[in-house]
Amino acid sequence: MNIAVLGTGSVGQTLAVKLHSLDHSVFMGTRNVEKSLAKTGKDSWGNEEVGTWIKSHPEISLVTFKKAVQSGNDLIVFAMNGGAAMDCLGSVGEDLLGGKVMIDITNPLDFSNGFPPSLTVCNTDSLAEQIQRKYPSLRVVKSLNTMSHLVMVDPGKISGDHSVFMSGNDHTAKSLVASVLASFGWKEHCIIDLGDISTARGTEMVLPLWLRLYGKINDPYFNFHINSAQAK
Amino acid sequence: MNIAVLGTGSVGQTLAVKLHSLDHSVFMGTRNVEKSLAKTGKDSWGNEEVGTWIKSHPEISLVTFKKAVQSGNDLIVFAMNGGAAMDCLGSVGEDLLGGKVMIDITNPLDFSNGFPPSLTVCNTDSLAEQIQRKYPSLRVVKSLNTMSHLVMVDPGKISGDHSVFMSGNDHTAKSLVASVLASFGWKEHCIIDLGDISTARGTEMVLPLWLRLYGKINDPYFNFHINSAQAK
Repeated sequence: MNIAVLGTGSVGQTLAVKLHSLDHSVFMGTRNVEKSLAKTGKDSWGNEEVGTWIKSHPEISLVTFKKAVQSGNDLIVFAMNGGAAMDCLGSVGEDLLGGKVMIDITNPLDFSNGFPPSLTVCNTDSLAEQIQRKYPSLRVVKSLNTMSHLVMVDPGKISGDHSVFMSGNDHTAKSLVASVLASFGWKEHCIIDLGDISTARGTEMVLPLWLRLYGKINDPYFNFHINSAQAK
Repeated sequence: MNIAVLGTGSVGQTLAVKLHSLDHSVFMGTRNVEKSLAKTGKDSWGNEEVGTWIKSHPEISLVTFKKAVQSGNDLIVFAMNGGAAMDCLGSVGEDLLGGKVMIDITNPLDFSNGFPPSLTVCNTDSLAEQIQRKYPSLRVVKSLNTMSHLVMVDPGKISGDHSVFMSGNDHTAKSLVASVLASFGWKEHCIIDLGDISTARGTEMVLPLWLRLYGKINDPYFNFHINSAQAK
């Protein structure tokens, strides 16, 4: 497929590399290509800035958000910073987004008051719903947002079963997303379709617990597993 | 121990029976004993109303909130409806609550707009923190609030590992709660101490996901497991 990855942070980088390794053509979108190329060294999390990273990944095209969606027209992987999410989509525009399938990984985290971050939207709404309302013909599937990016693309690094959720209104879009998840190594019975896009409230609201667990476990290789195996 | 169970719904009933079976003396607290005794039949969830239930459980004393804490002075199990939580504690009073250990199972669910409920507090605060702030010398440990009451007291009904969380500021109180959890059958490595009481935001905010999963699985015997087992 031709895939747009919107977002140049560690989540976008990891997804882009994985998708390319699976023979997809990947177009990474950023607000300003020149400014992104000028970002070198490491960010505050110790991850490579995109300007440094892209030099060792010539197989990935770094282009504007709009060009990424124009070229990566089979699937949008939305891996933005929560605060920049709506601006990014605004720069792509409704016409181009219409009918596209989007895996929305973005969490509405607000780090402005330090750690732990709060959510900019939750409880009676979610970022996924905001996106879906603003772009009704975009087929949003919230998924992969409840784990480290390292687990997203390599679930086999954790032994035993663990879960990935999907929320979305469009069944065909969820089938496509499930096939992408399966190509990453997710077992079919570990992919949980929660229902419509409003169920994304639940997975976005898991982030505060995930962040506390990350602080405690101090290793990104953990995940939620929904254990419903009844004892004999 | 002498244990106060505050709340007469299915969570309180299930905990009371389990604690009595473990040779504790259980004092179930309610706002108005006469009114509770007059509640018969089944509630809207299909659970026995307390007036019916108590007749087949003469081993449990049904008393006022205040008398329950006076008699059940070793541990308070807080299993109230979220909306009635602060009124309940107000009727017990600060003097009596001071120094006590409380397992806070109550979730701040608001069903006033139907299903799914929203939370009355979340994101930058939690019900557990509200209780702890209002009663600084009460030793609040948020726990057991992320699963069905049937799983709380019988974790062995789900095969394999699954997790129970604890949040609280007082280490001695958390040790006591952990020992109670162990007596219910919780394995030591499945009891996760998340940290101080502010980490209860994370577990209370899991409820929206839990409720959607319950709607999907349609069976109370499931639970979150934090899988951090790295593949060899």
